Amino acid sequence: MPFSVGQKVLLAHLMDDEGNKLVTDVLPEAGTTINLRITDTLTQDATGTFAYIEFEAMKVDRVKAERCVSYVDHQLMQADFKNADDHDFLRSCAAKFGIKLSRAGNGICHQVHLERFARPGKTLIGSDSHTPTAGGVGQIALGAGGLNVTLAMAGQAFPMKMPKFVGVHLTGKLNEWCTAKDVILEILRRDGVRGGKGFLYEYYGEGVKNLSVPQRATITNMGTELGATTSIFPSDEATKEFMIKQEREEDWCEMTCDEGVKWDREIEINLADIVPMVAKPHSPGNVCRMDELEPEKVNQVVVGSCTNSSYEDLMAVASMLKGKTLPPHVSMGILPGSRQVLSLLARNGALADMVGAGCRILESGCGGCIGLGFSPRSDSITVRTFNRNFHGRCGTKSAGNYLVSPETATACALKGCFTDPRTLGLDVPVIPEYKPVVDDSMIIPALPPKESEKVEIIRGPNIKPMPTLQPVSDLTDIEVSLYTGDDITTDDIMMAGAKVLPFRSNIPELAKFCFNPVDPTFPERALALGRSVVIGGFNYGQGSSREHAAIAPLHLGVRAVIAKTYARIHAENLAAWGIVPLEFLNKDDYADIKRDDHLDMPNLVEQLNAGKNVQVTNKRTGNTYECECVVSGRGLDQLMAGGALLQAAQ
Amino acid sequence: MPFSVGQKVLLAHLMDDEGNKLVTDVLPEAGTTINLRITDTLTQDATGTFAYIEFEAMKVDRVKAERCVSYVDHQLMQADFKNADDHDFLRSCAAKFGIKLSRAGNGICHQVHLERFARPGKTLIGSDSHTPTAGGVGQIALGAGGLNVTLAMAGQAFPMKMPKFVGVHLTGKLNEWCTAKDVILEILRRDGVRGGKGFLYEYYGEGVKNLSVPQRATITNMGTELGATTSIFPSDEATKEFMIKQEREEDWCEMTCDEGVKWDREIEINLADIVPMVAKPHSPGNVCRMDELEPEKVNQVVVGSCTNSSYEDLMAVASMLKGKTLPPHVSMGILPGSRQVLSLLARNGALADMVGAGCRILESGCGGCIGLGFSPRSDSITVRTFNRNFHGRCGTKSAGNYLVSPETATACALKGCFTDPRTLGLDVPVIPEYKPVVDDSMIIPALPPKESEKVEIIRGPNIKPMPTLQPVSDLTDIEVSLYTGDDITTDDIMMAGAKVLPFRSNIPELAKFCFNPVDPTFPERALALGRSVVIGGFNYGQGSSREHAAIAPLHLGVRAVIAKTYARIHAENLAAWGIVPLEFLNKDDYADIKRDDHLDMPNLVEQLNAGKNVQVTNKRTGNTYECECVVSGRGLDQLMAGGALLQAAQ
Repeated sequence: MPFSVGQKVLLAHLMDDEGNKLVTDVLPEAGTTINLRITDTLTQDATGTFAYIEFEAMKVDRVKAERCVSYVDHQLMQADFKNADDHDFLRSCAAKFGIKLSRAGNGICHQVHLERFARPGKTLIGSDSHTPTAGGVGQIALGAGGLNVTLAMAGQAFPMKMPKFVGVHLTGKLNEWCTAKDVILEILRRDGVRGGKGFLYEYYGEGVKNLSVPQRATITNMGTELGATTSIFPSDEATKEFMIKQEREEDWCEMTCDEGVKWDREIEINLADIVPMVAKPHSPGNVCRMDELEPEKVNQVVVGSCTNSSYEDLMAVASMLKGKTLPPHVSMGILPGSRQVLSLLARNGALADMVGAGCRILESGCGGCIGLGFSPRSDSITVRTFNRNFHGRCGTKSAGNYLVSPETATACALKGCFTDPRTLGLDVPVIPEYKPVVDDSMIIPALPPKESEKVEIIRGPNIKPMPTLQPVSDLTDIEVSLYTGDDITTDDIMMAGAKVLPFRSNIPELAKFCFNPVDPTFPERALALGRSVVIGGFNYGQGSSREHAAIAPLHLGVRAVIAKTYARIHAENLAAWGIVPLEFLNKDDYADIKRDDHLDMPNLVEQLNAGKNVQVTNKRTGNTYECECVVSGRGLDQLMAGGALLQAAQ
Repeated sequence: MPFSVGQKVLLAHLMDDEGNKLVTDVLPEAGTTINLRITDTLTQDATGTFAYIEFEAMKVDRVKAERCVSYVDHQLMQADFKNADDHDFLRSCAAKFGIKLSRAGNGICHQVHLERFARPGKTLIGSDSHTPTAGGVGQIALGAGGLNVTLAMAGQAFPMKMPKFVGVHLTGKLNEWCTAKDVILEILRRDGVRGGKGFLYEYYGEGVKNLSVPQRATITNMGTELGATTSIFPSDEATKEFMIKQEREEDWCEMTCDEGVKWDREIEINLADIVPMVAKPHSPGNVCRMDELEPEKVNQVVVGSCTNSSYEDLMAVASMLKGKTLPPHVSMGILPGSRQVLSLLARNGALADMVGAGCRILESGCGGCIGLGFSPRSDSITVRTFNRNFHGRCGTKSAGNYLVSPETATACALKGCFTDPRTLGLDVPVIPEYKPVVDDSMIIPALPPKESEKVEIIRGPNIKPMPTLQPVSDLTDIEVSLYTGDDITTDDIMMAGAKVLPFRSNIPELAKFCFNPVDPTFPERALALGRSVVIGGFNYGQGSSREHAAIAPLHLGVRAVIAKTYARIHAENLAAWGIVPLEFLNKDDYADIKRDDHLDMPNLVEQLNAGKNVQVTNKRTGNTYECECVVSGRGLDQLMAGGALLQAAQ
């Protein structure tokens, strides 16, 4: 049976529920849960800090996945101690757990990973949604939450829904001034930002060979905006050459799509038909042709991000800017994708050409893309080579954010207004052949186990350890610390927002806001009790899937929740963090309880292990309630062990 | 009579009280107020935004000083719209008022000014305390508050205390690894941070010719930390060569110190005796020799700032770093002083050498020096080439901040601990001869008057115009909006702190905090009244000299204050902003008044103009109080005109 590249990689990494390799040549049905063996992981500093706090809580000595890299690329502003504290925490965690660390200044995780670590035929998950960048070399690369990356680092399989497959058939060759960015913008124009949900986009056909690896990576990177599971290209001679240049031919293998694959959906693209495109505010799916825009004035232009900051991208920009001067009303920023790219530009004069034109050279990192720096002025138009233009994402709510290719961005900068680069009359940029300086001195290698043992984790004052995890035990004389109504949301339980976000790696501080909209006295009371139970009504834990809505109550000593009914994901999260999620079988029992009542569940462990109902006795009324634990299987295993982290560590 | 360089420049720029040139060859007595004609001005964006709001309020069409430059170098983080809004506001103000604008990315005001605008024999004031940098080429260069720079731009003389003169006699030549930074650190070791108060430090003698212009500028720059009025070097052949390289020989003239000048104080320095020095936490005056420090671990190193970011400084750093790799625990940042410096480094490979060693290249600007970025981690040691190491200034309160030369900083980075660069065994950096690329394309020239007229000021939502200024008028039936006790401070009137600072260019928003510690209802009540009077006890307005303690009440409609007594500077500030500062002649009259009383001063204007006491009648009690206006002369002129800005515009 013919298989595509993505199908081959998935098939080669299936595991059964017991954690053994699953040998099969039958594709699992789309939508069913598969367990994927993960060979490679990546984290970045915005999500990574908490991921390593989780890893620490697992008490696993060392990562078990083959290739784990921790990046520092998001929070480089360092307006106070917190960012730098995170950097040193991550450095010490990497040393402790056998992980490579790419230091602040070494570049954007996806660009560096593509250059130094991505490899065909393997599986990667990363705690960043643009992890699919590595699909450009034929790797299955998936964005995931921090807990899943943590579990993968510890050697656990990644449970995911088997995707359907979109075959994107590429023919022809891009015309001058038309780029890989315009290809993915065209697909976004067709499919929109929800059209990719449940699909893996695989690129194949004669056109593939006309795209370089960085171009392919631009496409798989921004494939995330389709809502897709991931995107993938084959691994071919161009991939091999790329790997040879990066001095890691040993990472290469050929991965091609068999003839006659049956796709769930097909897209036909003749690269010769692609023209400069633009995603208008405020969605990457709000796409039109660049030449459809009126020549409106542009205030700011930014080139960079994990989508468009390769050597090729920035050389095209430098070539267009050489000897020119930006108009006084345009502010242009350059964020080189990696230290490798920056070094090349600093050596060959391209950086000087960009400075000469009036560009501001920003740090090699993610900053501007996520509003951490280079926010444009009020009511302005900013033209960016980035992947997202959500309302306010650039840091300025009143700005209009337009996403384009580096060539189109530079054309807009030079003319000071929306400009199709084909109309500029400039010579087409010729990217000189190059050999990157392969220099990993800003990537700290993983320490050997014997040295790791001696490493002490460096923990700044805003980085606190995980709440203590412990296996479920019988509960007697446990007080009801909160009695809530119906439809309590995870926002009610653990609010988000700028005020509390800096504390996501500081659970004790974060927990002070737990149940704030319901009862601001809860955190103090619960902490004083030491251990307690929360009572809920119908649909307890609806809303966002945020796991902090389980972690904060755990820190405050909540050992069980008894509710009329649950929102499924929150019940699973409670179990994943060792809090027992019980449901009243007789919904009227809810009314028999009051805050401050004392409850007994003397046989809790035995009843849960046996899959039996749990008997809960109210010491005040003397009544006993029949309750059911709402998780089973993997979820119950996690619960009984004291959470997914402890269970994985067993 | 022999004169020093500083004395010659001051004498050549004296004005009388009527604004005419004062021709004299007698030095004014130290401590007396002199009026200095100002030829050149500079502003930066942190202080400049409000300075241009003030200038706008003067209704002067165009600057009258010869050479006015507005810089954007401080607030380059742009974490939201406010910074970029300020940048565009400054750009439009420069165009409107005939000022040159150095754009964001063009570099630090003092470094750029030294390269492109500083000139011997002239006078410069700047709204930044390190303006004395320009003293390196023989200019009298003074830091001042925004209002004084505004008045100077409008052609007003700058009133200042005549300084005493310290002659710093330089002999000999610096040894290898010993630098200009070590010279000024040695002087700080001797004189401390208050030793320079009331003094102008003038450098002379055979040793001068052994210091380059950038080295001299390092010394005059950091002379500010002595508390000195300013510092100055002669203008000699080295200065001429520097100017020729910068393609502005026409700005050069010779300025030398006559033989036999009688100094108020003398300092003797043999440059050959200078060794690497360090200012330890938390004062630039807490200086010792570098070799006196234990080799304690260093976490962070930063090279840059207006003190040490010239081409020569950074080439020394690059030369030391070439082919080396920083230890994993050291994070090193480079902030090039100007786009000219950055371009040179990007062209000659030095930037690539620094990137190669693992340095993070930050934007050419002031950021790291003032805690706007690159803050170190908690409890760390940061070694910096900057000029101030006040507690918390780097953004991290628990960090120890050490000030050294670029060579010493790099030695510490390479070894990862406190290191005297002489002990490293490296080749002494040889700075290659260079010719800067003179390229002012990031300096927007002043527009011709006809084009200026058409310019519209661009004002983001956080930039609000000045409160309306109006000449003093008679006050009848005016309500007492606040009745305060003794010792009200300017902090009581207009608090500082992170919460209100972002509103320093937004008086309506700032004024909402006016008198907050005394009566939070005051702003709303005063605004509702439209115009009102504040009553004060003894020592009204003590504390900081902040002018916003007059501007915020002005915005809220306060037309007069009647107090038992005043702190002098605050009374002058009130007059400078058009609020009448009256004192009860009979202190017991204070007790006759209550909040909400209505007062009459029907002959206020006539009485003030005639220098007579003011009669204030309380409509509730029928009593009349004899009051005295506490300003006279220039202060009274400013008051009657409706403030210094309106008076200057007359």
